[in-house]
Amino acid sequence: MYYAVRVNGLSCKDPAAVVSDDFFAGADKLRDEVSERYGFSALTVQIPGLNTQGQRYARVDLAPGAIFPPHYHPRAAETALVLEGSVYFGFVSSYPDNKLFSKVLHKGDVFAVPQGLMHFLYNNGTAPATLYASLSSQNPGLVLLADALFAGALPDDLLAKTLLTDKHTVDNIRANFRPS
Amino acid sequence: MYYAVRVNGLSCKDPAAVVSDDFFAGADKLRDEVSERYGFSALTVQIPGLNTQGQRYARVDLAPGAIFPPHYHPRAAETALVLEGSVYFGFVSSYPDNKLFSKVLHKGDVFAVPQGLMHFLYNNGTAPATLYASLSSQNPGLVLLADALFAGALPDDLLAKTLLTDKHTVDNIRANFRPS
Amino acid sequence: MYYAVRVNGLSCKDPAAVVSDDFFAGADKLRDEVSERYGFSALTVQIPGLNTQGQRYARVDLAPGAIFPPHYHPRAAETALVLEGSVYFGFVSSYPDNKLFSKVLHKGDVFAVPQGLMHFLYNNGTAPATLYASLSSQNPGLVLLADALFAGALPDDLLAKTLLTDKHTVDNIRANFRPS
Amino acid sequence: MYYAVRVNGLSCKDPAAVVSDDFFAGADKLRDEVSERYGFSALTVQIPGLNTQGQRYARVDLAPGAIFPPHYHPRAAETALVLEGSVYFGFVSSYPDNKLFSKVLHKGDVFAVPQGLMHFLYNNGTAPATLYASLSSQNPGLVLLADALFAGALPDDLLAKTLLTDKHTVDNIRANFRPS
Amino acid sequence: MYYAVRVNGLSCKDPAAVVSDDFFAGADKLRDEVSERYGFSALTVQIPGLNTQGQRYARVDLAPGAIFPPHYHPRAAETALVLEGSVYFGFVSSYPDNKLFSKVLHKGDVFAVPQGLMHFLYNNGTAPATLYASLSSQNPGLVLLADALFAGALPDDLLAKTLLTDKHTVDNIRANFRPS
Amino acid sequence: MYYAVRVNGLSCKDPAAVVSDDFFAGADKLRDEVSERYGFSALTVQIPGLNTQGQRYARVDLAPGAIFPPHYHPRAAETALVLEGSVYFGFVSSYPDNKLFSKVLHKGDVFAVPQGLMHFLYNNGTAPATLYASLSSQNPGLVLLADALFAGALPDDLLAKTLLTDKHTVDNIRANFRPS
Repeated sequence: MYYAVRVNGLSCKDPAAVVSDDFFAGADKLRDEVSERYGFSALTVQIPGLNTQGQRYARVDLAPGAIFPPHYHPRAAETALVLEGSVYFGFVSSYPDNKLFSKVLHKGDVFAVPQGLMHFLYNNGTAPATLYASLSSQNPGLVLLADALFAGALPDDLLAKTLLTDKHTVDNIRANFRPS
Repeated sequence: MYYAVRVNGLSCKDPAAVVSDDFFAGADKLRDEVSERYGFSALTVQIPGLNTQGQRYARVDLAPGAIFPPHYHPRAAETALVLEGSVYFGFVSSYPDNKLFSKVLHKGDVFAVPQGLMHFLYNNGTAPATLYASLSSQNPGLVLLADALFAGALPDDLLAKTLLTDKHTVDNIRANFRPS
Repeated sequence: MYYAVRVNGLSCKDPAAVVSDDFFAGADKLRDEVSERYGFSALTVQIPGLNTQGQRYARVDLAPGAIFPPHYHPRAAETALVLEGSVYFGFVSSYPDNKLFSKVLHKGDVFAVPQGLMHFLYNNGTAPATLYASLSSQNPGLVLLADALFAGALPDDLLAKTLLTDKHTVDNIRANFRPS
Repeated sequence: MYYAVRVNGLSCKDPAAVVSDDFFAGADKLRDEVSERYGFSALTVQIPGLNTQGQRYARVDLAPGAIFPPHYHPRAAETALVLEGSVYFGFVSSYPDNKLFSKVLHKGDVFAVPQGLMHFLYNNGTAPATLYASLSSQNPGLVLLADALFAGALPDDLLAKTLLTDKHTVDNIRANFRPS
Repeated sequence: MYYAVRVNGLSCKDPAAVVSDDFFAGADKLRDEVSERYGFSALTVQIPGLNTQGQRYARVDLAPGAIFPPHYHPRAAETALVLEGSVYFGFVSSYPDNKLFSKVLHKGDVFAVPQGLMHFLYNNGTAPATLYASLSSQNPGLVLLADALFAGALPDDLLAKTLLTDKHTVDNIRANFRPS
Repeated sequence: MYYAVRVNGLSCKDPAAVVSDDFFAGADKLRDEVSERYGFSALTVQIPGLNTQGQRYARVDLAPGAIFPPHYHPRAAETALVLEGSVYFGFVSSYPDNKLFSKVLHKGDVFAVPQGLMHFLYNNGTAPATLYASLSSQNPGLVLLADALFAGALPDDLLAKTLLTDKHTVDNIRANFRPS
C-alpha cells in the first residue's frame, strides 16, 4: 500500500518517518514570499503534509495605505478572512464585462475569488490589516499584472499598443519596475 | 459562453444577476450547523460564489473544557487556523497504525488533516478558543464517530462486538445519545 | 511516449517488461490485511496493473456471528457482492441525520456505500459468508472506528467527553484494545 | 447543504426520500443489456445510489463456446471476477504493439483491463461461466468492435481498405450483421 | 443509461436528437467574440458536442501590426498553430521571475502556454497572420490585462500605486479605455 | 515551491533550465508515428512543456484515396481542423446504436469526436488532404481496430465467432496483417 502511495505521487517521504510537525505550521514556519515594494508582506504557510491535499495558505499583512496589487493565481481559487483591521478587497470578472466585485472587509469577514480571476487588496484605512488567504491548490502560482507587463521583457511597442498609449509613457512606467 | 457555464453546472444563477454579496460572508451570514452537546459551536461560512470552487469554511468556538469530538469529512481535507486561545488538535492515521498526530496550537498556528482522516479539537485550557477551518470541498460532509455509532439504529449486539464489550455497557452509553 | 507515461506517474515499470500476470490475481495472490479480532478476514486483491486505474478489490470472509466492524474508506466509495451465505450490510449517513441504510444480503445481491460513509458487515446467520468488495481507488485507505477511538493514543478524558460517559467506562473498553 | 448537493449534480433525488433500496441491487434488478448473438448475456447491476460514485457493475454469463466479443469501454477501466466456471480473458495493448495480455481464469480469479483497451471473454470450456465485471465509471459506455465496423453505416470501400481486403469479403461479413 | 448521462451533466440534449452537425463547425459557424480595438479578431469555434469534452477552439486573425494584447485564460492551457503568415508569440512566467518565453512563429509552427499564464500575439510582419488556438476547457474564460486594469472600476489611486506612477498618468491611459 | 511542483509530477526538468523551445514545435520536430500501410502519415507534435497540460497534437496527411482507418484514443477526445483539401470524417456511437455521425470536411472546417469513440478519416477526393488533430490528453493512446483484431495474437476461432464468419475468411484477412 505504501508503495502504491509513492507510485501515485501522493507522498515522497517514508510514511514511517512522518511526524506531527509535517502537518503543522507555526509563526516560525512562515516564509516571506513576495517583495515589499507595495508595502505588504505575504507569508506562505509551509505544511509538507498538505502537498497533495489541494490546499495552500498565506498570511497577508498590509500597512495603512499599502496594497496587494492586482494579481491572480493560475491554478487556484482564493478565499480570504480578515484577522485584523479593515481592507478593500475586490476582483474583476472576465472579458468583456470586466465587472468589479468588491467589498470593504472588517475583522471576521470573508471574501472569495473564483478560479484565476484578477483580484487585489487595498488597506485604505489608518490601522494595519492582516488577512488569512486560502488557495485551492498546493501549487497555486502567482502573477502580478503590473510585473508581468512591465518587469519582464515585453517589447515596448507591444506594451504601448496594449495600453493604447505611447512608448514614452510606457518607458516612464517601466523605469520604476527596473531599478538601475 | 454563459450557456456553457450553466450546462456544466458551474453556476445556477443568471450571471447578469451576480453581485458582490454572492462572494461575501460577514458574521451575520454565519449559520450554526452543529449541536451544542459538546460545548462547541461550528458556524459555516455561507458563500454562494464558492459553490463550485472546491472550498468551504467554518468558524469553530470552543469554551474551556469543550471538545469538537472525533469526526471526519467524507469528501474533504481540512486545515485549521487558531484565531484565539489555545487548543489541542489531532488526527489518527489509518488502520492498522492508528497513529496519533497532534499538537497544542496557539493563536496563529495552523494544523492540517489529510482527506477523510478522523480528527478532533479539545480546548483543555482556561480561555475560550476560536478556529477558522478550511475544507477542500464545497460539500465536505461531516461524520461524528460517536453519533454514527450510538445515535443511529445500529443493532446493540453489533455495537457490543465492535467495542469488544457487553450490551449493558453499550446501552448505558447509548442512553445519553438518545434523550427521552 | 513511454517517457511521458512515466512522467505522468501512469506507470513505473518498463512497459516492455509488463506481462499478463501484472493484470491478474489468483487466490495465491490474496493477502491478509486485517486483524482476526472480529472473526473476519479481508484479503486484498493485489493487481499491479490496477495501480493508476482507480480500482481496488478485496475478498471478505465472515464466520457465523462475525462482523466487519463499523469502518470507512477515506478515499473511496465501496460496492460489495455476496458470493456465499447471507450478511447484514449497512451504512450510516452524515451528521446530523445518522440515518441507517441497510439490507440483509443473500448470494448475488449487491450493496453500495457512498464515498467515505461509515459501513459495517454482520454475519448474523449460521453459515459462513463471503463477499467481493470493490473500492473506487487504488489506495482507498481503511479506518475502523473502534480502533481509531480506542487503540490509539487519544486522551482518556477526551474519549469520556466524546462518549458522554466516564473515564472508568472508557478504560474498561480500552483495555480490550490494548492487550498487555 | 442539500441545495449545494443538487447544484453540484451529486444527487437529483430529494435526499429526504432516499431509501436503502437506492443502494441495493438484487437478482430481480439485473437488466439484460446486450444482444444474445454471441451466446452470452450481460446483466447490468442498476444501483441509483452509485450514480455519481464512479462505479458500475455487470454480471456476465457465457454458455460453453460463447464469447463476449472484442469490445472496450470509452470511459472506464474494467476488472472481472470469475464466479463460476472457467473463461479465457484477454486484452490487446495500443498501437503499434497490439500485444495480447491474457489468462485462462478459474473461479475466484480476477483480471484487469486498463482504461479503454480492447478486451474479450471466451468460454472455451464445457461448463457455463459467470463473471462479475466492475467498471470505473457510472457511465462507462460500450463499443463492440465488430458491430462498430459492420453493423453501422461505414462505406464498403472504407471497410475494404481498412481490412486490407475486397468489397466482396466485406459484404459477406456485413450480411450477418444486417439481418434482413 | 441516458438518464444517468443527463444526471451527470454530460449532455442536456435528448441523445436521440443528436446529429452530425452537433460535432461540426464550418466557417459559417465562427462567431466574433473579441473587440476590434487591437486590430485582431478572434472567432470562436462553436461545437455543441464538445460541451463536456474539455476542449474549445478559436481562429485568430491579425492584420499587419495588430496584436492580441497580453491576456490569460483562468481555466485553460492554450496551444496555437500558425495557419498563415508569421507572428511573435510569447508568455510570461509567474512571479517573481516574470521570465519571457517567446518565439517568432511561421506557418505550421505550434507554441504552447501553460494553464493560466499571461500570453500575447504580435503580428510585427507585413502580411496578415492567422492562427488556430486550442484551449483545454469548454469554458476557458478570457482576461485581457489592460482591460481588467483600466476598463473596469478600479480606484485611480489603487492603479497609480499598482503601476508605481501618478493618477495623472493613470487617467491619461484610462481615457482610451473609456470612450465617451 | 519548485520542490512541490516536482513532487506533484507537474515537471521533471529543473525549472531554471526551461527554455522557449520547450513550448515550441516546428516542422522539424514532427515525428512520424503511424505506419504508411493505409497511405496516410500522422506526425505527432512534440512539445515537452505540454506534458502535464492535458493536450497533444498531430498533423495528418492523406493522399487521394488514403484512409486513417477506424481507430480510437483510449484516453482522449479529438477535434480536427482541415488545413488543406477535403476529407470524409466520421465516428460511430456506442453499442447498441452504432450510429454514424459524419461530414465531408473542407479547408477550415472542424469536427469533434467524443472521448473514446471509434472514428476514421477518408480522403475520397483527388487532392491531398491535411488535418491538424487535437487530443485532450498528453498521453491519448491509439488503437486501430483492424490491427487490434488481426495483427495481434487473438485466436482464429474467437475472431471467426466475432465476425460471424469462418476461419478461412479470418485467415485470408489476417494474412495481410502478418507479412511473411
